[in-house]
Amino acid sequence: MPSCASSLTLQAVAELIGAELRDHAQGQTVISGVASLSQAGSAQVSFFSNPMYKPLLAATRAAAVIMDQESAAHCPVAVLATPNPQLAFARLAAVFAPAVSKQQGIHPSATVCPTAHIAPDAWIGPHCVVEAGAVVDSGVWIGPNCTIDTEVHIGQGSRLIAQVTLCRGVRLGQRVLLHPGVVIGSDGFGLASDSGRWVKVPQLGSVRIGDDVEIGANTTVDRGALDDTVLETGVKLDNQIQVGHNVHIGAHTAIAGGVMIGGSTRIGQHCMIGGGGCISGHLHIADRVVITGMTGVSKSITQAGMYSSALTAEPTLVWNRIRSRLRRIEDVVRRIGILEKTVRGDKA
Amino acid sequence: MPSCASSLTLQAVAELIGAELRDHAQGQTVISGVASLSQAGSAQVSFFSNPMYKPLLAATRAAAVIMDQESAAHCPVAVLATPNPQLAFARLAAVFAPAVSKQQGIHPSATVCPTAHIAPDAWIGPHCVVEAGAVVDSGVWIGPNCTIDTEVHIGQGSRLIAQVTLCRGVRLGQRVLLHPGVVIGSDGFGLASDSGRWVKVPQLGSVRIGDDVEIGANTTVDRGALDDTVLETGVKLDNQIQVGHNVHIGAHTAIAGGVMIGGSTRIGQHCMIGGGGCISGHLHIADRVVITGMTGVSKSITQAGMYSSALTAEPTLVWNRIRSRLRRIEDVVRRIGILEKTVRGDKA
Amino acid sequence: MPSCASSLTLQAVAELIGAELRDHAQGQTVISGVASLSQAGSAQVSFFSNPMYKPLLAATRAAAVIMDQESAAHCPVAVLATPNPQLAFARLAAVFAPAVSKQQGIHPSATVCPTAHIAPDAWIGPHCVVEAGAVVDSGVWIGPNCTIDTEVHIGQGSRLIAQVTLCRGVRLGQRVLLHPGVVIGSDGFGLASDSGRWVKVPQLGSVRIGDDVEIGANTTVDRGALDDTVLETGVKLDNQIQVGHNVHIGAHTAIAGGVMIGGSTRIGQHCMIGGGGCISGHLHIADRVVITGMTGVSKSITQAGMYSSALTAEPTLVWNRIRSRLRRIEDVVRRIGILEKTVRGDKA
Repeated sequence: MPSCASSLTLQAVAELIGAELRDHAQGQTVISGVASLSQAGSAQVSFFSNPMYKPLLAATRAAAVIMDQESAAHCPVAVLATPNPQLAFARLAAVFAPAVSKQQGIHPSATVCPTAHIAPDAWIGPHCVVEAGAVVDSGVWIGPNCTIDTEVHIGQGSRLIAQVTLCRGVRLGQRVLLHPGVVIGSDGFGLASDSGRWVKVPQLGSVRIGDDVEIGANTTVDRGALDDTVLETGVKLDNQIQVGHNVHIGAHTAIAGGVMIGGSTRIGQHCMIGGGGCISGHLHIADRVVITGMTGVSKSITQAGMYSSALTAEPTLVWNRIRSRLRRIEDVVRRIGILEKTVRGDKA
Repeated sequence: MPSCASSLTLQAVAELIGAELRDHAQGQTVISGVASLSQAGSAQVSFFSNPMYKPLLAATRAAAVIMDQESAAHCPVAVLATPNPQLAFARLAAVFAPAVSKQQGIHPSATVCPTAHIAPDAWIGPHCVVEAGAVVDSGVWIGPNCTIDTEVHIGQGSRLIAQVTLCRGVRLGQRVLLHPGVVIGSDGFGLASDSGRWVKVPQLGSVRIGDDVEIGANTTVDRGALDDTVLETGVKLDNQIQVGHNVHIGAHTAIAGGVMIGGSTRIGQHCMIGGGGCISGHLHIADRVVITGMTGVSKSITQAGMYSSALTAEPTLVWNRIRSRLRRIEDVVRRIGILEKTVRGDKA
Repeated sequence: MPSCASSLTLQAVAELIGAELRDHAQGQTVISGVASLSQAGSAQVSFFSNPMYKPLLAATRAAAVIMDQESAAHCPVAVLATPNPQLAFARLAAVFAPAVSKQQGIHPSATVCPTAHIAPDAWIGPHCVVEAGAVVDSGVWIGPNCTIDTEVHIGQGSRLIAQVTLCRGVRLGQRVLLHPGVVIGSDGFGLASDSGRWVKVPQLGSVRIGDDVEIGANTTVDRGALDDTVLETGVKLDNQIQVGHNVHIGAHTAIAGGVMIGGSTRIGQHCMIGGGGCISGHLHIADRVVITGMTGVSKSITQAGMYSSALTAEPTLVWNRIRSRLRRIEDVVRRIGILEKTVRGDKA
């Protein structure tokens, strides 16, 4: 696939992304990039899938819009029809994305232990620290100010953008992408009580990250207490997530920002978890579970499906009354019980 | 305004902050600093606005207390009366705050690309990395261990305290203040599903931060997918907040710690959002909306006003009963329906 | 206590951790490490306390299992009986934990101000920055890429793993352990409104951290506005926690991941706070309060005990009905009132 292409015809775009160009007359229109419905001009392709944005679609000046066939009637410009517009768009956008840096070698300001093994075509950026016994495989790119502790293994083609910390013995698969501020392998929260004082339980496991995992800015993944914390292939974590010790996240599960996952919880494959929620420790979440945003999960979920517990903002005065009624719901039930007895009594 | 003043008379304080000194006899009392109601001594000025702290006010030994006129009767010492005590106090405290560092130049341990443009009076701290094409304007101060990626623009007088990461192409206005661990411009969470595997949607937009924005420690602001993520003038973000891609936050909106904001949500101007809450993606929040702490927002809010959805801790045994009743609230409604029919039937 | 022991007999293990070895015949069995119930082999000791893991206990191949006397009957291998298995295990695991690094001196890539005072047996790691007037006591170990600002004091034997930021004047006690990405002493969120624009309230206090405090990855602790933010002896904070300005956390309190604590709140001693919750500002939480996960606290808690407000995930269709009923709970109460009047009327 071309990288950083300067231009493509619409016909070439259609072939590249596997879409059908509805208006063949425009097949030779030259495209120089992608843009949003509202910003796209006559040399740019845009994308439509969220029905909320129909007014923007109606007003777009894009050369063409990637969308599903059902929506095509609403499009004022050429349509690139495909059953999965988001995927087609991702492929096109990749063509116009800035080329990723291809540096190789070790920046002179980096501190690399002589016993670390750095592939000749890997890049260790400025002010990085790579400790003893670390292994950095071919094609790895490590941006500025990263800390790679002892015995870490970074698989082929992985990228650490900047300010990433990988603690002792952490293992990354291939093509792993870690955003700034990520911390992998810090100690889990293991405490034993000794007459009211906390004694640290040494955290002796590590973290294993599968291939094609992406982890967002300032997300933290704790090392296991004994066994490893595991993220399987293709797991995608957004920013500011906390993954407790010995958590196991199944392949191709995606988790949005700010979710807290308690220790030893096992999440299945192909799950989708909305932002701002919390999953208690020691639970099992089945495969293909969808959890909507800001949901608290305190019991295991054994069946695929969609789950929720979030409340929705109301005007505060209204909410305060609702909350106050909720606190006295026991009283409501009691009054109903009395009524039921009374009414039955009337009839008796 | 003087910086790091060693002393001021109470009369000078009153003039400086636009307050009325109630006890003129004390106009020549010399003040050497500010302190809390409980810690202030006879050479310090304190501050009162939260009625909760009346007992501390009654016992204070401060030289004078900044407060509103209504509360003055409760003050055992000299009063500096003003309708906005918090603002007056902020101005006085600024006088006694430690002078900010005025270094200029580039620390020899920093790594600065020759194509970066650094104003002669800017400061690039130790172990910073400034990549190609970055522009650092006059009076900018960048503390230790920061990473400034390619084509970033940092406006005049901005300060990055330490360990800040600005990704490719991020633009900061003037006098922006970024606390340690802040990450601006990391990739948004854009994924397309390809038969159950996630394909990354390249994040091609950037982030634009207006003048006088302050962002707290370890807060993250994602770059836009196509258009930019935008924080307008005077936005104030506390610590550990996540701002998703293409979010737009209006001028002078303040958001407390730990709030998660989903992608493409647009928040108005002059909003105040309490800590620990969550706002779903693709919403509109009107101007002058106040959202109380730990509130989840999953629908747009079209009118100014105060909104809530937070619950309040109860003793666990009580709460478990409430929660269990709530789960069966459907049953409560059903029983009421039966009762209503029965009672109506009795009367028929 | 031996560090990084290669082997111990079971009898020696029993003595070391104060447990009773039930099967004396196995006293001479040689142990080379610890492992989980499922992974342990015949030269490893494991640990059992959560009844959820009984099936793993039944199938374990460990040489011995640390557990309480009541559970011993279920154990297929030798038992190391003790009333506090977690504590006993913590002690044994410490024996087999990797030795902590004992480097001394200042890495040549670190930038240390000549006016900083570094104990001769302390270690300042690569690319660290230590500013003017900082004091680093005996036995302190500071890992890579840390920033220690002016006048910081780090007590004897403390360890900063990597990428830690300590702002101006922060004071750490002895044996404090800070994980990567921790920020201590960043500005609190202090704002005064000046006709709709926010004016920064200078944050003039600092942070005092007691002995034996441990703070997890990417947790942030803000400096006080006037007085200091305080964490007393033995406080344990997990990852991604936010501690607002002037918070006071009592000795031996433990807080799990992602909790947001609003400014000026005072939390007692020996409290335990579950993950993902939120505590509003200006509250008092008594000693020995337990708050379960994802709980919001918006009123002071004056009595020891356990408190909750979390909801539990339900299938979304079920939850949407529950939530919708909750919104109209006022209506439920009204209908009950009408029924009560009607029924009383019938009887009148």
